[in-house]
Amino acid sequence: MSISTERTELAELGEFGLIQRLSARITLDRPSSVKGIGDDAAVIDPAGLHQVVTTDMLVEGVHFDLGYVPLKHLGYKAVVVNLSDVYAMNATPQHITVSLALSNRFPVEAVDELYEGILLACRTYGVDLVGGDTCASPSGLVISVTAIGAANREEIVYRKGSRVNDLLVVSGDLGGAYMGLQVLEREKAVFQDTNAQPDLDGHDYILERQLKPEARRDIIQLLKQLDVRPTSMIDISDGLASEALHLAHASGNGVVIYDEKLPIDPTTYRTAREFDLDPSTCALNGGEDYELLFTVALSDLEKIKGNPDLSIIGHMTDKEGGHQLVDKQGGLHALRAQGWDAFLRSGS
Amino acid sequence: MSISTERTELAELGEFGLIQRLSARITLDRPSSVKGIGDDAAVIDPAGLHQVVTTDMLVEGVHFDLGYVPLKHLGYKAVVVNLSDVYAMNATPQHITVSLALSNRFPVEAVDELYEGILLACRTYGVDLVGGDTCASPSGLVISVTAIGAANREEIVYRKGSRVNDLLVVSGDLGGAYMGLQVLEREKAVFQDTNAQPDLDGHDYILERQLKPEARRDIIQLLKQLDVRPTSMIDISDGLASEALHLAHASGNGVVIYDEKLPIDPTTYRTAREFDLDPSTCALNGGEDYELLFTVALSDLEKIKGNPDLSIIGHMTDKEGGHQLVDKQGGLHALRAQGWDAFLRSGS
Repeated sequence: MSISTERTELAELGEFGLIQRLSARITLDRPSSVKGIGDDAAVIDPAGLHQVVTTDMLVEGVHFDLGYVPLKHLGYKAVVVNLSDVYAMNATPQHITVSLALSNRFPVEAVDELYEGILLACRTYGVDLVGGDTCASPSGLVISVTAIGAANREEIVYRKGSRVNDLLVVSGDLGGAYMGLQVLEREKAVFQDTNAQPDLDGHDYILERQLKPEARRDIIQLLKQLDVRPTSMIDISDGLASEALHLAHASGNGVVIYDEKLPIDPTTYRTAREFDLDPSTCALNGGEDYELLFTVALSDLEKIKGNPDLSIIGHMTDKEGGHQLVDKQGGLHALRAQGWDAFLRSGS
Repeated sequence: MSISTERTELAELGEFGLIQRLSARITLDRPSSVKGIGDDAAVIDPAGLHQVVTTDMLVEGVHFDLGYVPLKHLGYKAVVVNLSDVYAMNATPQHITVSLALSNRFPVEAVDELYEGILLACRTYGVDLVGGDTCASPSGLVISVTAIGAANREEIVYRKGSRVNDLLVVSGDLGGAYMGLQVLEREKAVFQDTNAQPDLDGHDYILERQLKPEARRDIIQLLKQLDVRPTSMIDISDGLASEALHLAHASGNGVVIYDEKLPIDPTTYRTAREFDLDPSTCALNGGEDYELLFTVALSDLEKIKGNPDLSIIGHMTDKEGGHQLVDKQGGLHALRAQGWDAFLRSGS
């Protein structure tokens, strides 16, 4: 964690002092932000729109390792994973609240770095930070972000809604964040064993996928431009297979995914091979890609075909079709969610 | 912590299993709840109202001690402290999200107990639980609740808004939650030293104030019935003195509080004496009372005078009046916020 050499203890500032320090950097830019930090609650003017609300908690030692995650990146990512959920509803994120629990291991300068990332994400995505809570923690760092977005009622896209024969489409490419994590964990282990400097060369793309993911606002905008309204949608946090099953279950449908259609970046592919992993398995179960997975009517095929940001990877079937993965030889396999379960990694 | 003798490990259920188990007990009762748990985000129909948003994080070892706080009470309190903030805006809470980080010290049955309290608070206050996150923690329990409420724009009452000569009014009585905590900590220490059973007799009222506080929805309703619109309002979480200073600062006013007007329950008074503490100091700085502190125009005096739930404890002055406490002998003292600062108690 590369922070400046100054170290100001949190206890020197106190809770009110810290809130004041952080508040000084926060501006409200959205017309819907009536009142931000500084009262019992924030006030939002929905202006006739529906509101969508999502929340995610990140816990040190479970979701991130400050051994290789810079605090600024962590702050950015903590916001982005929530915005991704809002976009997955086909809504526009407008407001977030951020709660932090901090042990006194963290100086004020570390909190500044974390907020730099949080506020950078706010600026990048046009979101106002309107509230939060900052408190002590006996050990470690916990970040809880709640994001609120807005959409016209008829624009909102749920996980439920796909119909038989709808195309299954994914944005961007898959497996990169997972492979980025493998590289970071390998280099951390090497560093602990030999004190050798990490060798991260040639892995820039997948490291960025892991450390500084982006939410696919551009895809939501693209679909509007193309006049395509997804029939169902979800963002990929746990892994493609898991999310595809969510979409299928939500609508009582079956789903077929074609292995050969999975979008995998060359860096991801090469690194998976380097680690003796199957690139398709990484794409299917890696997780944390924060791409959008959605279904569109077959009649929308012409509008999306050939778009470099969108891959048609399969289609929905009736329930009897089951949940299938078609391998490159045409063999059928049951599609299973193999994303790791956080509780299995939980300490005491 | 009195939980049933069954113990099911969280890892047996897994994250999805736990979410399913919890979701089965959750109902959506508000017309504004369009979609609750089970999608990327919840969907709310604001129906033309403004939304108010507040969030609070409770951390084991900082905000609560499971040595004497039952999990059900903890769940209830975690919700109530957020609802209190919504009422303090003169708004009606409608939706909450709840995020939990849990170490594997907690069996599924413990999470059930916690949710029993959370859902009891939801039923009591007519609020829908619409989302959340459940994840692992390397140690201890963290609860982050976000509450969303609604109000007509012109109904919302801010911390700012008081005018010179406005009356300063507080609901209920003060210092009880603080004295309840003192009793619990004393009995815990006695138990640790001697293994003697705790002696909590005669302290029921203040223990309830600490363990199962209520948010003052009734006061918001009462003020509407009385046709009194506060000019400014805040809830008392850090202590009367601290909150009164917030109200004064927000409006650029001074404030005078009369010691002899402080509402103190006989149990609080007696227990403070038992602990050799000044009851007024407990009322001024104790915190966690979750009463409402507000200002009203002098012309509303007749409407609120003599109401058993409301105490007129002072008034606002111009800035030059400063921030004063008038003791029972008429002596003037500077009003200071002496609420404890969480960071000073933070471990490593």
